Amino acid sequence: MNTPQAQLGDVLAAGGEELTGLLARTEERLAEVVAGHGDALGRHAAGTLAAGGKRLRPVLVFLCADGEGDGRLVAAAASVELLHMATLVHDDVLDGAALRRGRPTVFASGGRLAATATGDLLFSRAFAELAATGSGDAVRALSRASSSLARGELVQRADAFDIQVTPERYLERCRLKTASLFEASCRLGALFGGRPELADPLGRVGEQIGLAFQMLDDVLDVSGPSERTGKPRGADLLDGTVTLPLILARERDAVLASLDLRREVRDARAAAAVCDRVAATGVLDDARREALTHVAGAKAALAEVALPDDRRRALDLVADGVVGRYA
Amino acid sequence: MNTPQAQLGDVLAAGGEELTGLLARTEERLAEVVAGHGDALGRHAAGTLAAGGKRLRPVLVFLCADGEGDGRLVAAAASVELLHMATLVHDDVLDGAALRRGRPTVFASGGRLAATATGDLLFSRAFAELAATGSGDAVRALSRASSSLARGELVQRADAFDIQVTPERYLERCRLKTASLFEASCRLGALFGGRPELADPLGRVGEQIGLAFQMLDDVLDVSGPSERTGKPRGADLLDGTVTLPLILARERDAVLASLDLRREVRDARAAAAVCDRVAATGVLDDARREALTHVAGAKAALAEVALPDDRRRALDLVADGVVGRYA
Repeated sequence: MNTPQAQLGDVLAAGGEELTGLLARTEERLAEVVAGHGDALGRHAAGTLAAGGKRLRPVLVFLCADGEGDGRLVAAAASVELLHMATLVHDDVLDGAALRRGRPTVFASGGRLAATATGDLLFSRAFAELAATGSGDAVRALSRASSSLARGELVQRADAFDIQVTPERYLERCRLKTASLFEASCRLGALFGGRPELADPLGRVGEQIGLAFQMLDDVLDVSGPSERTGKPRGADLLDGTVTLPLILARERDAVLASLDLRREVRDARAAAAVCDRVAATGVLDDARREALTHVAGAKAALAEVALPDDRRRALDLVADGVVGRYA
Repeated sequence: MNTPQAQLGDVLAAGGEELTGLLARTEERLAEVVAGHGDALGRHAAGTLAAGGKRLRPVLVFLCADGEGDGRLVAAAASVELLHMATLVHDDVLDGAALRRGRPTVFASGGRLAATATGDLLFSRAFAELAATGSGDAVRALSRASSSLARGELVQRADAFDIQVTPERYLERCRLKTASLFEASCRLGALFGGRPELADPLGRVGEQIGLAFQMLDDVLDVSGPSERTGKPRGADLLDGTVTLPLILARERDAVLASLDLRREVRDARAAAAVCDRVAATGVLDDARREALTHVAGAKAALAEVALPDDRRRALDLVADGVVGRYA
C-alpha cells in the first residue's frame, strides 16, 4: 500500500481483515482489466493504476456492504475505480498535465489521442465490469454517476472565469463532478452487499461525504501546502475554476470581487498571490466549516441507517477523514 | 431526412413503414436524451444530432429484429447511435476538426474541454439507455463494442506513421474501430427483436458489413471526390493513418514503400499528391475488391440465417450499399 492509502489506516483497522482482503482483490482485478485489453491500454493505464490513490470509492463500496455480500462487490469496486481513473485520464488531457502523483500522465507519455482513447477504454471497462454482474440497477447507478461527472465538467466549463458564480451553482457542480460517484459507490455496496433496502439512504450518506470531500479539496487548492496536495496552489484559478473560498472572499474584498481571472491570473505566481489574498480574508475557516456541515450531514444520515455499529463507526471515520486531510 | 439518408432509400423501401416509423422514434428519443441532460449537453450535442448521418447502426438494429420486437428496440438503436456520436465528438477533438457534415463541431463551438465532456456524457447516456432495458446481455454487447472502439483508436495511434504496418494489423484495426459497433447493433436487434438465438450469426453479419464499410471508407479517402466524402483527399495520411490502399501500393511503388509520412506529407497538397500516386498503381480496384469480399462474406453468412426473405433482402441491400457509395 502506498502513502496516500496510509491515511485510511484507521478505516482499514476498523474494517478489519475482510476490508483489507477485498481491497487487495480489487487491486488484482484492476490489474487484470488493465492487462487484458490490449498492449496499448496496458502500457498507458498501468501507470495510472500503479499511481494508486486512496481507493476511497472502493472503500465506500465495501463499507456499505454486509461482509462479502453476494460475490459481486469486487466487480462494483473495480467499476467505480475504473470510472474514476477514466475521468482522471481525461482531466489530465484537458489540463495538459504532465504529472499526477509524481508519475507521468497518460497524456504526457502517450499524447492527447492515446490519453483520450485510454480514458474511453477505462470508461467502457467500468461498464463492462458491472454489466457482467447482470444487475440493471447497478448499471443504472453507474451510468447516472457517469453522466453526472460529465455534466459536472460541462458546468465547470460553462462557469469558467465567472467570478460571480453563485454558491448554489458551486454546490451543484460539486454534486455532479464528485458527490455523484461517491453516492453510486455506496449504492452499489448496498445493492450487492445484501442491503438493497439501504441503497437510497446509504447513497445519501455517500453524497454528503462526496460534497465534503470536494469542498475540502477546494480549500486545499488555496491553502496548500503544495508538497502535500501534489499540485501548485491556485491550480483551480489558473483553469478559471471559481470555488467556495473565492466566492466567500469576494464578499469581503472588493479587489477580489472585480478580479478578471483570465487577464490577471496567468501564471503560478499570480495564482499564489490571489490565494494569499483569499486566505487573508479569513474565509478558509468558513469554507472548511461548510465542508464540515456535510460531514455532519453524512453522520446524521448514517445515524438513521440500520447498520451494525462497527460499520457505522468505520463510515464515520471516512467522513471525518475527508476533511481531516493535512489538518 | 437529409441527403446521406437518401442513399438508404432502397433499404427503407424494403423495410417498409415499420422501419421508417422505428427510425422516426429513434430520432425523437435521441432528441429527448440530448435535451434532457443539462443545457450544456443540449447546446453542444444538438448540432451533432441535427447533422444527422445515415443512422446506419439503428437501421441494422431494426433490420435484425422481428417487427417491433419486445419494445426495447428503440432504446437499443438510440444507444448505438449515442455511442457512435460520442466517438465522433471525441474524434473531432483529436483531429482539431472545425466542421463535420458542414456544421461546426462541438470542439469548434465549445472548445476542447466541452467537447471531451460532451463525448463522455454521450457515452454515459448510451449505457444509460441500455441499462434501462434491464438486459445484462445488451449492456455487455455495448460495453464490448465500446471497448473495441477505444482499442481501435489506441491501435491506430500506436501504428501512426508506420508505413510498414501489416495487412493483418490493418484488418484488426477495422474490426476494432468500426466492425465492433456494427456487430453490436445486429446483436442488439436480434436480442430485443424476438430472435435471441440469432444474436451470434447476425452479429457476424454485422461485423462483415462493418469491415466492408471501413475498407471502402479508406478507399474513398484516397479516391475522393472530396465534394462527396466531405473531407479533403488524404486526410488519413495527414493523421499518419496507413490504410489498405497504401499498404497495397507500397508493394508496387518503391517510392511509396519508403515514404516518410511525418516529413513528406505535411499539408493537403502533399497528401493529394500521394493519393494520386497510390491511385496510379491501380490498387484502388484491389482494395474495393477486398471490401467486396466482406460484403460477400456478409451475404453468405446471411444466407445461413433463418430470416424472412424480405429481411434478408433488406440486409443484403445494406451490405451492397456500404460499398456502393459514390460508385
